[in-house]
Amino acid sequence: MRTIELEPGLVRLVDQRRLPLEFAVLECRDYRQVAEAIRTLAVRGAPAIGVAAAAGLALAARAAADRPAPEFWAALEAAARELKATRPTAVNLFWAVDRAMGVARERQAQGAVPAEVAEALYQHAVRLAEEDVAVNRRMAEIGQELIRDGDGVLTHCNTGSLATVDWGTALGVIRAAHERGKRIHLYIDETRPVLQGARLTAWEALRYGIPATLITDNMAGHFMRLGKIQICFVGADRIAANGDTANKIGTYTVAVLAREHGIPFYVVAPTSTVDLSIPSGDHIPIEERNPEEVTHIAGVRVAPEGIRVANPAFDVTPARYITGIITEKGIIYPPFEVGLRRALAGGDG
Amino acid sequence: MRTIELEPGLVRLVDQRRLPLEFAVLECRDYRQVAEAIRTLAVRGAPAIGVAAAAGLALAARAAADRPAPEFWAALEAAARELKATRPTAVNLFWAVDRAMGVARERQAQGAVPAEVAEALYQHAVRLAEEDVAVNRRMAEIGQELIRDGDGVLTHCNTGSLATVDWGTALGVIRAAHERGKRIHLYIDETRPVLQGARLTAWEALRYGIPATLITDNMAGHFMRLGKIQICFVGADRIAANGDTANKIGTYTVAVLAREHGIPFYVVAPTSTVDLSIPSGDHIPIEERNPEEVTHIAGVRVAPEGIRVANPAFDVTPARYITGIITEKGIIYPPFEVGLRRALAGGDG
Repeated sequence: MRTIELEPGLVRLVDQRRLPLEFAVLECRDYRQVAEAIRTLAVRGAPAIGVAAAAGLALAARAAADRPAPEFWAALEAAARELKATRPTAVNLFWAVDRAMGVARERQAQGAVPAEVAEALYQHAVRLAEEDVAVNRRMAEIGQELIRDGDGVLTHCNTGSLATVDWGTALGVIRAAHERGKRIHLYIDETRPVLQGARLTAWEALRYGIPATLITDNMAGHFMRLGKIQICFVGADRIAANGDTANKIGTYTVAVLAREHGIPFYVVAPTSTVDLSIPSGDHIPIEERNPEEVTHIAGVRVAPEGIRVANPAFDVTPARYITGIITEKGIIYPPFEVGLRRALAGGDG
Repeated sequence: MRTIELEPGLVRLVDQRRLPLEFAVLECRDYRQVAEAIRTLAVRGAPAIGVAAAAGLALAARAAADRPAPEFWAALEAAARELKATRPTAVNLFWAVDRAMGVARERQAQGAVPAEVAEALYQHAVRLAEEDVAVNRRMAEIGQELIRDGDGVLTHCNTGSLATVDWGTALGVIRAAHERGKRIHLYIDETRPVLQGARLTAWEALRYGIPATLITDNMAGHFMRLGKIQICFVGADRIAANGDTANKIGTYTVAVLAREHGIPFYVVAPTSTVDLSIPSGDHIPIEERNPEEVTHIAGVRVAPEGIRVANPAFDVTPARYITGIITEKGIIYPPFEVGLRRALAGGDG
């Protein structure tokens, strides 16, 4: 199945908290379940949470569809606010909810009654999901050209099918190179604290038959120094107008190491991840998560009680460390200000 | 208690596999128990395993003390071989066993019978333990001068009392600055895969009252970029003649990040860690440990079955990333070839 599947009144999500030990599906019939799934990382990855939020909004609309218009709109606005408040860093979430609300308001302006608006929101979420897959396929097509036969490829976190509706962003590029028959070897950062690399990317690599080695995050530099890694691909949660990129904590370290070793470092993200409203990464809010993600692993305490913990979920990689940004509109190279603005204006990058 | 305590016929070790959840002491009456403790990381840290091995050799000698000389020496040589085979990277282990065997052979040359040789080995191990503490105190005294009031200090792995007989190397420097009343904040890399930072350094920081924050290894770059870290101290498992330093996996990444941010990066290690017999870090054997250290945490599987794993226990930091090496003979600055050779020749650095 896809990571997110929609039926009228139902959103099915692959429950990523339980992978790789168990493949379980979460069935959400209330938008609050979707919000909770986003908060608890049952569904994660910037593109996936965007689509999940749009699907959640469609559930909220359907549930209120037979109420009088003022109540319907109040319920819809409340659901939009709650869905947008689940996580602060990934811009796709806000983009998807706002875009969906735009569709709803447009139908309202055309005189649609609540039930018709609800139907429009459902159809919109379905289209958004299809669009995500198409965009990912396009980025994979473009990005895989950068991978040469025999390359060692490093990735961080999970940016595969599980981080999107299907196919993936950075891992999608790598998968496309593998499917073209290029002999690559994938190095997977385990990605503490939540271990998306060890749990999810390793699981996907095994499924696709991509030769891969799981490493702890602090081994990447060692393998770069030994000449094992020729190119890096990561995803993004938000890209500022100047190209500064917020992504999973540890991405910045990979970027610094890549530059130190002369290894190209690419970000793979749909243009919906670009936030032209902020000039630089300094303006991206960084989510601070529960300290227990660090002090406990799989429910077992590993650090002493009473120790203070920092747990920023993301870091910002300044644009100067980024070789290129692979979007569905093409690869954008520095100066990113120009290329990102052109891509979002509808150009082909 | 100290991390290693000796009585005739008994070696007591703080069992570091069980910290921080439990403070347990391992009582070894047979040298094979000591060898097993080194292999399984019940005792770890280059200085501590050197002293533990010397203490193990004393146990082997005592056990064979009433056997005829040829049998005694055969038993002693076998024990020395087994103790040296426990772990391949830290040179202190070989240094300590060879130095102890030198003492034994010297007593033999003086006409000592096995029981007298055994007694000499015990006295030697006791002296080695005392020497370790004195050397650590001296390095702390020297190194703490580098820390300024208000500094954020980063360390990797555990280099405190638990990595030595007492007091520690890199963490000993930090502790000395704290005890001088300098207001510092310690950032502790959790140090995957075995989590010596989360389990041991965090536990020590709490004991000494050093203000500290535990972070995952991939957060260090983020906090450096935010200006939170002014200086780094790490230990060493082996230092080549040119200053290249093998230390816990992840150390190299910290060194690259430190240089990128203009942050001084110091190695703290007794001169017994220096191996002038090898010209550079390329000649240091790197121990590859069990993949389960990566795929399982606290006994719980976190990665899918079948995924290939790399688990080098150490990496090599080339000398050019190292600001200085703090030894009991003083701080050695580049060019390290000259300074290390002078320090080992008995000079004061």
